[in-house]
Amino acid sequence: MVAKLTYFAMSGIGDPIRLLLSYSNIEFEDIRIGKGEDWQKLKPTLKLPYLPMLEMDGKTHFQTFAICRYLARKAGLNGSSEEEGLAIDATVDTLVDMLKKTVLDYFRPDSEERSKLLKTSLEVTIPFYLNVFEKQLEENNGYLVAGKLTWADIVVLTLGTYLCGIFKVDILADFPKLKEHRQKISELPVIKEWLEKRPADPEDYRLL
Amino acid sequence: MVAKLTYFAMSGIGDPIRLLLSYSNIEFEDIRIGKGEDWQKLKPTLKLPYLPMLEMDGKTHFQTFAICRYLARKAGLNGSSEEEGLAIDATVDTLVDMLKKTVLDYFRPDSEERSKLLKTSLEVTIPFYLNVFEKQLEENNGYLVAGKLTWADIVVLTLGTYLCGIFKVDILADFPKLKEHRQKISELPVIKEWLEKRPADPEDYRLL
Repeated sequence: MVAKLTYFAMSGIGDPIRLLLSYSNIEFEDIRIGKGEDWQKLKPTLKLPYLPMLEMDGKTHFQTFAICRYLARKAGLNGSSEEEGLAIDATVDTLVDMLKKTVLDYFRPDSEERSKLLKTSLEVTIPFYLNVFEKQLEENNGYLVAGKLTWADIVVLTLGTYLCGIFKVDILADFPKLKEHRQKISELPVIKEWLEKRPADPEDYRLL
Repeated sequence: MVAKLTYFAMSGIGDPIRLLLSYSNIEFEDIRIGKGEDWQKLKPTLKLPYLPMLEMDGKTHFQTFAICRYLARKAGLNGSSEEEGLAIDATVDTLVDMLKKTVLDYFRPDSEERSKLLKTSLEVTIPFYLNVFEKQLEENNGYLVAGKLTWADIVVLTLGTYLCGIFKVDILADFPKLKEHRQKISELPVIKEWLEKRPADPEDYRLL
């Protein structure tokens, strides 16, 4: 049976899963629902009121990063020791922290407070976290962990790119290693193919 | 070398790590620092401005749940298949969602808005999530996943208890399976021993 991923018609936290499914050559139906009526109808029928939702091998799964880790383990992208697994998980959790501290403020109604918060995001919070990742790339031969491709690279590529799209600036401008990393990961053959074939959405935030 | 865990003088998100270290018989220094000057001095010296921080085998680790998963894998508490690992991770992420949606509002300054938010937490949000866990206990023979002890049980025990302490009510009152689960997990010999010997803190939120 073909797997089914249900999410909204956007990159967001759906793309890391879509990309890992593609990387693993797992055929899946990429169901993209509307945020309005579609979602209001579906929501009360679910175990958790969230998307993305992955249906695979007769089971239904929620929680993006739990799903990503699962697919990564199957694909050999979760490092090759418990220590590497820990470093990958900590990197992903740190990226999620950066997103939580910045993305929600972007979607506040326009106000003086919002402008201040966005300024802090762009000038303080985002550079702080990007600096953490830049150092990891320096220490790990151009990858985030263990000197090789892991699912942390894929999550940072997709969600970092999403953040660039939201803020409509290239937040990586002053981070040469991260720019190089984005280039390198997005040119891996399976990933390149997927980036080229994924459907465009005019409302989406996307840089790549 | 003895491991070192640095956190504040409270249960919070330090206790799941402390409990997993104890469960694994890993000797550790339980460093509890003040939230004021101590923390302001330490913070700028760290890779990430967060606690808890675990120093172990010559490395420094951040990110509570990444650390818990690592300790759980070493202790055999991460399930015995990739599918079980996914179910455990999703359960922990769902608990974290419940905490994020409720705990922060508790610490807002007193106001009418705060009272409304707390009412929603206690009457809607918390029961919704507890119901999810209650069903999982029903389906998994009294454990959250896979019919056996995993680190999800330990995280739900420690953080669920912390939440009870914050709200000063037993949120489990209407959830018989969760009450039974708390009883059962807290009476496992290693866990019981740890609960009895951990230092008391008058400012802490704690039910058990």
